[in-house]
Amino acid sequence: MKQTHIFKNPPGIISSAAVGGRMESEGPMGEYFDKINEDPYMSTDTFEQGESKLQKEAMLHMLKKQNLKESDIDLLFGGDLLNQCTSTTYGIRDFEIPFFGLYGACSTMAEALIMASVFTSGGYAGKAAAVTSSHFCSAERQYRFPLNYGGQRPPTSQWTATASGALCVSAKGKSPYVRGFTVGKIEDLGVTDANNMGAAMAPAAWSTISAFFNDTGKTPNDFDMILTGDLGKVGSRLLCELAEKENVNIREVHKDCALMLYSFDEQDVHAGGSGCGCCASVLCGYILPRIRSGEFENVLFAATGALMSPIINQQGETIPSISHAVWLSHRHGC
Amino acid sequence: MKQTHIFKNPPGIISSAAVGGRMESEGPMGEYFDKINEDPYMSTDTFEQGESKLQKEAMLHMLKKQNLKESDIDLLFGGDLLNQCTSTTYGIRDFEIPFFGLYGACSTMAEALIMASVFTSGGYAGKAAAVTSSHFCSAERQYRFPLNYGGQRPPTSQWTATASGALCVSAKGKSPYVRGFTVGKIEDLGVTDANNMGAAMAPAAWSTISAFFNDTGKTPNDFDMILTGDLGKVGSRLLCELAEKENVNIREVHKDCALMLYSFDEQDVHAGGSGCGCCASVLCGYILPRIRSGEFENVLFAATGALMSPIINQQGETIPSISHAVWLSHRHGC
Repeated sequence: MKQTHIFKNPPGIISSAAVGGRMESEGPMGEYFDKINEDPYMSTDTFEQGESKLQKEAMLHMLKKQNLKESDIDLLFGGDLLNQCTSTTYGIRDFEIPFFGLYGACSTMAEALIMASVFTSGGYAGKAAAVTSSHFCSAERQYRFPLNYGGQRPPTSQWTATASGALCVSAKGKSPYVRGFTVGKIEDLGVTDANNMGAAMAPAAWSTISAFFNDTGKTPNDFDMILTGDLGKVGSRLLCELAEKENVNIREVHKDCALMLYSFDEQDVHAGGSGCGCCASVLCGYILPRIRSGEFENVLFAATGALMSPIINQQGETIPSISHAVWLSHRHGC
Repeated sequence: MKQTHIFKNPPGIISSAAVGGRMESEGPMGEYFDKINEDPYMSTDTFEQGESKLQKEAMLHMLKKQNLKESDIDLLFGGDLLNQCTSTTYGIRDFEIPFFGLYGACSTMAEALIMASVFTSGGYAGKAAAVTSSHFCSAERQYRFPLNYGGQRPPTSQWTATASGALCVSAKGKSPYVRGFTVGKIEDLGVTDANNMGAAMAPAAWSTISAFFNDTGKTPNDFDMILTGDLGKVGSRLLCELAEKENVNIREVHKDCALMLYSFDEQDVHAGGSGCGCCASVLCGYILPRIRSGEFENVLFAATGALMSPIINQQGETIPSISHAVWLSHRHGC
């Protein structure tokens, strides 16, 4: 059973935008955001409404950058980490765009990008957009503790990014092209520590990345970058070790969005960033423009998601994870 | 902007199965379930684990009925109502099938069926499956109150079905064929009462159904049934009124899964059924076999979802809704 599909007519990503919070603006990716919100409420009454506004802003910036109108977009794919994916629903409800909701936890941007690519390349939509977000304050109180409680975070924990990324795919696109994708299977190696998501997700990342290499015959040398998101320090180390066990060396080309978004020396983010908005904003703000310019020729973007909920975790269950990979390229290849 | 796509090569639904609980077995659809679980825990320790087991059982029955193996399925689409869609994740994690998680609230089966149809018809998968579920006990404690609290349910409230439906779509399929689909836009007419989902969702259902008719030139007379799920008594009345305001009469052909699953005279379900498992089990257990046999020639299946969460609702927000429609037919049409 092949998990990978290579497009005969690779669609292109014609626009992308990233919106972030103050912490994100102070990290190495700060200058690549289209907008920074200093206020964690984004001038709304609640963190949840603030996160919705992040998505709306990311969509509006993405449209504006290429003079696209809302009515130019035939289909929108989106999702987020909040219960019932409400940051997406409330963030995009003012757009009159046919919408499909997705849930892939922190892998949602890869899932949405695959969907947008399939629907455009297959002729089911002219232009399709993808959007996702996360917010430190809404995620902490939903997954762990309300901030006011002042809970201590262990060293393996990751910092949920307050950020959103949006992009638009077109069948008649330009670089970066979406050349193919690998759909992940659920992996569960028995990790139960909800403060160590990196360890839970690393096996899923390797499962999908190795499936991509096996299905396509490509090797890490064919890529400028294998970009995971968001394994953090712990998960990234595990991923490289899992690869080495199968005699594949990805150390030279591996980067992780969780390790790119923040300055470890100056920002107290423990094992790195996380959340749907982490890899979405690094991808949309930093990576895609560099593929467009030709600075990167080929990037394998493998986003990872931990598919648990607090209630299931409290019932003693282990954490199943998934990773979907997208081959992004400066060249059309046809 | 057209919301509707008609397949040049309509894929077919080669197998389907429905699994339910005791309440569902006592209603008019009781005899059409492949398996009934008398125990709401399904022999697990929690309602959440029980709901996961419903999905697993639905998948296994769906595979067995057509002698399909797990490895025959290239891709699985699924989702549910629980936070972070965990009934799906934990229900299907033992299957080694590439997986995409979806969130469309009670519209999830229509969304998953559209995805499975697009990926098979477009050549991205040979066979693709769709699965979804809901559970009265897990839904009540997540969305409203734990059962032990004994909260009173108002007359407009609906009864979340304890049920799951699974199906498999193939490009080389047979009747029922998936002839086309309409992707819904988010509609929000300002309903804030989380105990009146039918009223919140009716405008979304009409928006999508009328878009289908406008895009295709078809009329209600072309269909044996316009099958919504799950509007219940209140939402169904509103849907027919919304249609009549635009001079369209759908009363003769309109059926609603929420009104088909239970016996109103004998079962205390107030405004009807609801939950991802309601329309999924009615579709997979009752409708699809009747399209296969030719008893129904054409059915427009328009599932609806209310895209709110308890926390957003408690923050005073209105309830945005969505509906996706699928044209199912006994005939291939090509």
